[in-house]
Amino acid sequence: MEHIPFPTWPDVAPRLIAVAAGREAADMVIRGGVWVNVHSRELLPDHSVAIAAGRIAFVGPDAGHCIGPDTQIIEAQGRYILPGLCDAHMHIESGMLTPAEFARAVIPHGTTSMFTDPHEIANVLGLEGVRMMHDEAMMQPVNIFTQMPSCAPSAPGLETTGYEISPEDVAEAMSWPGIIGLGEMMNFPGVIHGDPKMLAEIAATQRAGKTVGGHYASPDLGPDFAAYVAGGPADDHEGTCEADAIARVRQGMRSMMRLGSAWYDVENQITAITEKGLDPRNFVLCTDDCHSGTLVNDGHMNRVVRHAIACGCDPLIALQMATINTATHFGLEREIGSVTPGRRADIILSSDLSGLPIETVIARGQIVAENGAITVDCPHLDWPDQARNTVHLGHKLTSEDFEVQAPAGANRVQANVIGVVENQAPTKALKAELPIIGGLVEGEGDVCQISLVERHRATGGVANAFVSGFGYQGRMAMASTVAHDSHHMIVVGTDREQMALAANRLAEVGGGITLFQDGQELALVELPIAGLMSDNPAADVAAKAENLVKAMEACGCQLNNAYMQHSLLALVVIPELRISDLGLVDVRTFKKIDLLEPLA
Amino acid sequence: MEHIPFPTWPDVAPRLIAVAAGREAADMVIRGGVWVNVHSRELLPDHSVAIAAGRIAFVGPDAGHCIGPDTQIIEAQGRYILPGLCDAHMHIESGMLTPAEFARAVIPHGTTSMFTDPHEIANVLGLEGVRMMHDEAMMQPVNIFTQMPSCAPSAPGLETTGYEISPEDVAEAMSWPGIIGLGEMMNFPGVIHGDPKMLAEIAATQRAGKTVGGHYASPDLGPDFAAYVAGGPADDHEGTCEADAIARVRQGMRSMMRLGSAWYDVENQITAITEKGLDPRNFVLCTDDCHSGTLVNDGHMNRVVRHAIACGCDPLIALQMATINTATHFGLEREIGSVTPGRRADIILSSDLSGLPIETVIARGQIVAENGAITVDCPHLDWPDQARNTVHLGHKLTSEDFEVQAPAGANRVQANVIGVVENQAPTKALKAELPIIGGLVEGEGDVCQISLVERHRATGGVANAFVSGFGYQGRMAMASTVAHDSHHMIVVGTDREQMALAANRLAEVGGGITLFQDGQELALVELPIAGLMSDNPAADVAAKAENLVKAMEACGCQLNNAYMQHSLLALVVIPELRISDLGLVDVRTFKKIDLLEPLA
Repeated sequence: MEHIPFPTWPDVAPRLIAVAAGREAADMVIRGGVWVNVHSRELLPDHSVAIAAGRIAFVGPDAGHCIGPDTQIIEAQGRYILPGLCDAHMHIESGMLTPAEFARAVIPHGTTSMFTDPHEIANVLGLEGVRMMHDEAMMQPVNIFTQMPSCAPSAPGLETTGYEISPEDVAEAMSWPGIIGLGEMMNFPGVIHGDPKMLAEIAATQRAGKTVGGHYASPDLGPDFAAYVAGGPADDHEGTCEADAIARVRQGMRSMMRLGSAWYDVENQITAITEKGLDPRNFVLCTDDCHSGTLVNDGHMNRVVRHAIACGCDPLIALQMATINTATHFGLEREIGSVTPGRRADIILSSDLSGLPIETVIARGQIVAENGAITVDCPHLDWPDQARNTVHLGHKLTSEDFEVQAPAGANRVQANVIGVVENQAPTKALKAELPIIGGLVEGEGDVCQISLVERHRATGGVANAFVSGFGYQGRMAMASTVAHDSHHMIVVGTDREQMALAANRLAEVGGGITLFQDGQELALVELPIAGLMSDNPAADVAAKAENLVKAMEACGCQLNNAYMQHSLLALVVIPELRISDLGLVDVRTFKKIDLLEPLA
Repeated sequence: MEHIPFPTWPDVAPRLIAVAAGREAADMVIRGGVWVNVHSRELLPDHSVAIAAGRIAFVGPDAGHCIGPDTQIIEAQGRYILPGLCDAHMHIESGMLTPAEFARAVIPHGTTSMFTDPHEIANVLGLEGVRMMHDEAMMQPVNIFTQMPSCAPSAPGLETTGYEISPEDVAEAMSWPGIIGLGEMMNFPGVIHGDPKMLAEIAATQRAGKTVGGHYASPDLGPDFAAYVAGGPADDHEGTCEADAIARVRQGMRSMMRLGSAWYDVENQITAITEKGLDPRNFVLCTDDCHSGTLVNDGHMNRVVRHAIACGCDPLIALQMATINTATHFGLEREIGSVTPGRRADIILSSDLSGLPIETVIARGQIVAENGAITVDCPHLDWPDQARNTVHLGHKLTSEDFEVQAPAGANRVQANVIGVVENQAPTKALKAELPIIGGLVEGEGDVCQISLVERHRATGGVANAFVSGFGYQGRMAMASTVAHDSHHMIVVGTDREQMALAANRLAEVGGGITLFQDGQELALVELPIAGLMSDNPAADVAAKAENLVKAMEACGCQLNNAYMQHSLLALVVIPELRISDLGLVDVRTFKKIDLLEPLA
C-alpha cells in the first residue's frame, strides 16, 4: 500500500507566497476564464489562476507575474473556472467498483472530492475492510475522505454480519489520516433511546473534532426527530420532502439532498431554497448510491448539479451546494471547495454553467481528465486474499439445502411471503397458500423461493422463504453476494437445482451476481473484492450488469430496477418483511416470525 | 486559578436526548417566542426552547413534553429568541479592564462569546501574561476564546518589548484549552517576504487545526495582498472600504467589519452586501477595540449589530454576521452561534430586532443579565505580583532625564517633530526650528516634549523627542503606560519637572495614566495589571478616563480622542513618525532617524 504524499498548505506556503508575489514561477497558469467564486457568489470574467505545488497560489485578473519559462499555460478562452465537485455522502460499493475504479469513472465528470462511507465492506470484513477501502482511497489522484461506518450490524439481533463495528473501532479509525467523520448513524431508534453503544460512537467522533453523519429515515418530525438531533448527527440525507429539508436546516443540521441512481430527493426538497427562500448555505448535494451504469451513461455530481439547476436553482447556488457548502460542513473550507489561494488546485473548465459540460478536470494541480477521458492512473491496492476470498459456504450446496419441509400430513400451507413492490424500497408482508409436493412446500404462480445463504462464517446455514413480485417463469435462479446490509448471499429462484448452481457458482468466482436458467449461466457479474466490488473498469461492470438485467427480463421479470429489489431483500431495517440469516423478519415490529402458519 | 467546568455535547448527550424525547425534564424552558433562526435565516413565531445541562436540548413549537415540576419557565411573551452575540476579534486590554471586568461590562449587552487577542499583555509579560489572560477568560460565565498573539514585537529591530513571542510559544499555546487560533498577523510585510518566523507561527496554528487571524493594513490589493493571502491568514479586519471587503471574501478570507470606539469600518464595507449583493456568509462583525466608556454608555456587539442594521443591512443578516458566521469561521458552528440543539444555551430575549434592546441574557443555560444589569459573578484571577509590578524604572526620574542637549554653540536647531493629526492614527513627520536655552533644546508654541520611558527591564532609558498638535499650555505633563505596542511609558509635557512627577507617579501606582499640572495631579487612571488594565468595574474606569479627558482639556487640548493619540505615539508600524525606546522612527522607511538636524 502506498499513499500519494500531498503536502499541506503550511508545507508549501513559502512557495505559494513567492509565486503570488511574483518572485517564483507557477507550475501552471489557467489564463483568461470566468472565475466562479463560490465565496462571494459571483461570476468574475477575465481572471487567471496560478498553481504551484498542487495548490492555488494566486487568482486575479492578471497572473503574468507568476509565469516563467516552464509554466504550463492553459488558455481558458473565456470558459468558466470552477471548483472541482464534491459528493458529500456516498457509498463506493454501490457502484460495484473498487475506490480506484470508482475514481476513474467519476473524475472525467468533474468529481474531485468524495465523502464515502464503506458501510458494505464493514459488514463483510469489519474494521480491516474499512482500512483497505481507506487505503486505496488515499492512493487516488483525487480526494476520497472516508466516513467510518457506524452501524454494522444495522439491526443487531436480527442478523449476523461478518464483522461488527464497535465504539472502540470508531475511536481507532478516528486517528487514520483519511477519516473525516462517522458514517451515517442509521440506528436512529438507538440514538433516540440513548443506546450507549451508538452514543459512544458519536462521542468518539465529536471528541476527535470530526463530523457525525446522520440518517433519520422517518417522516416523523416530532420529539423523536428532536431527540435524534440532540444526539449529535450533523447532517442528514434521508429527507424526501420540503418539510424534511427545512426541519433539518432549522435544527442546525445540514440537509443533504441526494440524486442517486435510484434516489430522486432533490426536486422535492430544493423548493426550500427556490420557493421558500431559505439561506442556501446549509444545503448540500450528494448521490448516496450510484450504479456503474449511471456513472458510465449519465455522470456523477455533474448530473446532480445539472438536475438542481433544472429544478430551478440558481446555478451559482447549485454549485455552492456541491463545493464550498460541502467543504465547510466537513471543516475543509480552507482545503477544498473553492478556487482560492492555498486550497488544493481542484478545478473544472466548462463552457456552460447550466449544461455543465466537463471539459477539463484538474486535481491537485495536474490535469486528470480532458473531454470525458481520464488522463491519469488510479492505482489499485494489492487487495489481500482475505478480501478476495469472502464467500465461505460450509459445503457445496445441493437442491436439498433449499427444501422447505411441510408440516406432517398437510396438503397445503399458509406462508408469510415477502412482497416486492415496484420502485419502492419497502416490501409488503403478504400471505399465500402454497401447495405441498412430496412433503415439501413449493412456490406457485408468482411466488417463488428466496434463500439467505450464510457466507461469512461457513456455517452452512441456509434460511429459506418465499417471495413474490419478480414474475420469474421457467426453471431459473439468481444469486447475489450484494445483499444489504449484512451481505450474505440472496438466492431467488423457481427451481432448487438452479438455486444450488447459482450459489455454488458465486462461491467459485468469489462473489458477485449470477443468473442460471435450465442449467446454463445466462449472466455473471464477478465481484471478487468482498463479494461486493470489481476491480475492473466501470464500463465493463456496467455492461455485465446490463447483461444481467436482460437475463432477468428473459426469465420473465418486468420490474424496474429489479436487481436493486433483489439486493435489498435482506435489509432488515426497512419494512415490512425481509429475510436474514436468522429467518424471516417483520420489520414493522423488529421481530422474527415463522415462515409457515396453519391454514386459517 | 480555577476553570469553570463546562461539559461537552457528548458529555451530556444522553440528557439532551432524554429531554428532547420527553423522558426527562429540562432545567429551563423559554416559552412562546419568535425563534430567530440564523441557519435558515427565518423568523419563526410561537417557538419554545428547552435547556438542560447548560445546552439546548429542544427547539420547537411546543416544549410542553420537556417541562417537569422543577423546570424554570421563562415566558418570552412573543419576544425574539436570538443567539448570544459574538465578537469575532477584539483586544480586552483596549477597555483597560481585566477579562473578568470586561465580561461583566459586556454581558448585559448580550455578548456571550468573544475572540480576544491579548496582544498588549504579550508585549509586557510574554507568554505567561497571555496565559494569565487566558486563565481568567476561562473562569468567566461566558465564552472567551483566546487568540495567541503573533507579533511581539510588532516591529522587530525598531523597539524593545518586555518579552518576545516565538514560534515555539505559539506551538505551546495551541495546546491550551481556550486557544482558538493565532491573533492577527500584523507583520504582513514579513509574510509577503516569506519571513520564516512568521510562517512558522502560521504553520503551528494551521497544523493544530486552528484559525489564523489576519491584519493586512494596506490599501494595495495587488500581488502583495495576494501573497499575504497565500500565506494563510483566514480573516482580516483591517479593510476600510467596499473594495477591501470584497477582495478579502473573493480570495477566500472572511471579511471582519469593525465598529470599535474609534473604528468606523462597517458603513463603508457593508455595501458589499447591501448594494453589491454578495453572499453574506463570509462577512463577520467585530469591535477590535472598545474603551470602557463605550461599553458603559453605548454597548458592545449590540451596538455593532444596530449600526449594521442602520446602514441598511437586513436584521437577520446582521445577526448572522454576529453569530453563526463567526462560529463557523472558528470551527465552532456546532458549539455556539445559534439556538439549536446541542449548542451552548447562549440566548438573548429582545422585543425589537432593529433597536435590539437586550432584555434577558442567558449564557450556558443560566440567566446572566436582566434589563442591563448583570446577575452573575465574573470571577477574578489572583493576579500574581509579577503582573501587578510591571513599571520598572531604573531610577527615580528627575527633570534632567528629559533634557535634550543642544549641539555645542548653536542658538536654534531644527528638530524632527511628531505631528499629531486629529481623528487619524497616522502622524505627520514634521520639522520645527526650536530654541536653545541654557544648552537645552526647548519646545515652543504647540511643540512640546515627548519621552519614551523604558519600563520593562529597568534600564533607566529615556528617549526624548518633540511632538506637536496637542495644544497643551502652561506647565503640565501626561504619562501613560498604555503605549502601543511595546507599552513602555509615553510622557508628553510642556515642563520637565511635571514629566518627572508624572512618570514617577505611574511607577508608584504600578502603571496607568496620570496628568500633572503645576505640581498637582489633575487625573489618574490606575491600571495596575501589567500597567494596562484595571480590575475595577468598567464604570469606575470610564469615570476616571472621562476625568482624564477633562484634565487634558483643562491643559488646552482640544483634540478629539486625544488620549488615544497619546497612547499610539510609540506604535512604530503606522506612519509617519513615532518614538520608541530606541529613539525616533520614520515608519515610512522603517528606519531610526536623528532627533536634531543642522539648520538648513
